[in-house]
Amino acid sequence: MKISQIGEFGLIQVLKGILSSPIIGDDTAPVEINGETLLLTTDCMVEDRHFKRFYAPEVVGWKVISVNVSDVVASGGNALYALVSLALPDIEVAYVEGLYRGIKEACSFYGCQVVGGNITKAEKIVIDAFMLGKTDRFVSRSGAKPGDKLYVSGTLGDAKAGLELLLLERKKYEDFELKLIERHIRPTARIDYIKHIRKYANACIDISDGLSSDVWHLSRMSGVKISIKSNDIPVSEELKLFCKKHGRNPLEYALTGGEDYQLLFTHPEDRYNPFLDMKCIGFVEEGSGAYIDGETLHPMGFDHFR
Amino acid sequence: MKISQIGEFGLIQVLKGILSSPIIGDDTAPVEINGETLLLTTDCMVEDRHFKRFYAPEVVGWKVISVNVSDVVASGGNALYALVSLALPDIEVAYVEGLYRGIKEACSFYGCQVVGGNITKAEKIVIDAFMLGKTDRFVSRSGAKPGDKLYVSGTLGDAKAGLELLLLERKKYEDFELKLIERHIRPTARIDYIKHIRKYANACIDISDGLSSDVWHLSRMSGVKISIKSNDIPVSEELKLFCKKHGRNPLEYALTGGEDYQLLFTHPEDRYNPFLDMKCIGFVEEGSGAYIDGETLHPMGFDHFR
Repeated sequence: MKISQIGEFGLIQVLKGILSSPIIGDDTAPVEINGETLLLTTDCMVEDRHFKRFYAPEVVGWKVISVNVSDVVASGGNALYALVSLALPDIEVAYVEGLYRGIKEACSFYGCQVVGGNITKAEKIVIDAFMLGKTDRFVSRSGAKPGDKLYVSGTLGDAKAGLELLLLERKKYEDFELKLIERHIRPTARIDYIKHIRKYANACIDISDGLSSDVWHLSRMSGVKISIKSNDIPVSEELKLFCKKHGRNPLEYALTGGEDYQLLFTHPEDRYNPFLDMKCIGFVEEGSGAYIDGETLHPMGFDHFR
Repeated sequence: MKISQIGEFGLIQVLKGILSSPIIGDDTAPVEINGETLLLTTDCMVEDRHFKRFYAPEVVGWKVISVNVSDVVASGGNALYALVSLALPDIEVAYVEGLYRGIKEACSFYGCQVVGGNITKAEKIVIDAFMLGKTDRFVSRSGAKPGDKLYVSGTLGDAKAGLELLLLERKKYEDFELKLIERHIRPTARIDYIKHIRKYANACIDISDGLSSDVWHLSRMSGVKISIKSNDIPVSEELKLFCKKHGRNPLEYALTGGEDYQLLFTHPEDRYNPFLDMKCIGFVEEGSGAYIDGETLHPMGFDHFR
């Protein structure tokens, strides 16, 4: 049986069984050391899967740190220390320098630090980052409670539209198109939400596989029924313009687009904070499954092997 | 300028400059959290560089954990938690299961635990492991003191001979050859040395690049002169048999063979412990450079890009 027959998430289930570890399957792994909750996570970028060689190396470096910080933020934590493991062909040193400038810039922005790493040779560029964070309260994917409302930060679907635009490799882009491209190549982890998530969220996940998949992750891991309303899903003006121009449906982009790295979280309604760009898109009840406008929500997010 | 023109270690210097971090360049990165010294490290195995697809996946899994534990041990620490990041082609699930059985077996042996990871698609298998350890006293590569003696654990050069034998892909091997192959595919991190290193070593490194290179690493990082005596370098009976059979020089294998994952460390002579398989192979003086039998020692270890 090949991996593609069971998919990325099927494989993770198989491996969890072998390790018989209960904590695998969240955005980060929480471990207690001396009464402190540390958060461990890793995320990887592979050439021609997550980025192309023609991207500026600075943005690739920025992104690999951002996606790891995003996982730490989704667990209610602050990122502290990173290791970067590079597998590289014999490329220009200038490229690797650009990569590291992007990594350093991201670390300065997020308040973390690269303390080590590893370099090895390979045929394609693989950049693996490991992040150590900490929190006073670990927020998991499994804490959503009946009665909670479901919230999302920012807008969804932009990164997917940005990627499609970027792959056209046009010489000129309109302003709104450049903004969408920026959302793809330079996602920003929502560190402005750390305090809110840590203090109030019952469950949280960063949307990296697409809203429809990630709502299912929350529902399954929390053992609850989650319903969302399509009209409430926040989409940007830029995405609306893009969809108008290309005859697409913004909702499809918002539901299936991974890599927005926005946060999806639940808590009681009275914890709503008007100073954050959070929007209520649904609610949590006893039961199981994920629904949109009363119909079953089909998970259409990204699976590396399907 | 290509990476091959400055080599792996030249590239690390360039990247250290960009990050302006003083702590990069040791076996692990020590970070203080709540008065506890945590050790972070990462090491990676790339298909066709560090292993072949025909190796049993269990031994590949064992090895990726072992090489990371080895780094933690060289810093005087105990390995606690690991993350495993896999980049995989669409291969058989059974292969990945074997890999994880090896990972689990190694973790049980070393007393650590895999708490998370990541899976992504790629053209060749890349297995990146990240290890978090802890210690009461961080032992670096830079603490060797004039007056110290230089010690090595176990025997050197076996893994290199084992790799050469393995690549012959013969159907039958003699017993001593199988032992050498075992040293290559199933290295064991020297956790029996943790207490000794933590308590007594002024400097320590695990020999992963080859003795000649790693003596230079200690000498440079500690700012001392190190002299070794070729007759004192421990080589196994199996390596002697191998060299006799193939007309090779055991010393060359001991000096250049990486991947033995033995420990190279310094401390005063009166800290010698006869219950460990440690052997004095040289001494530390004021000055600089690395010497063998009075001549300059040429670093002939492994550089991925040269």
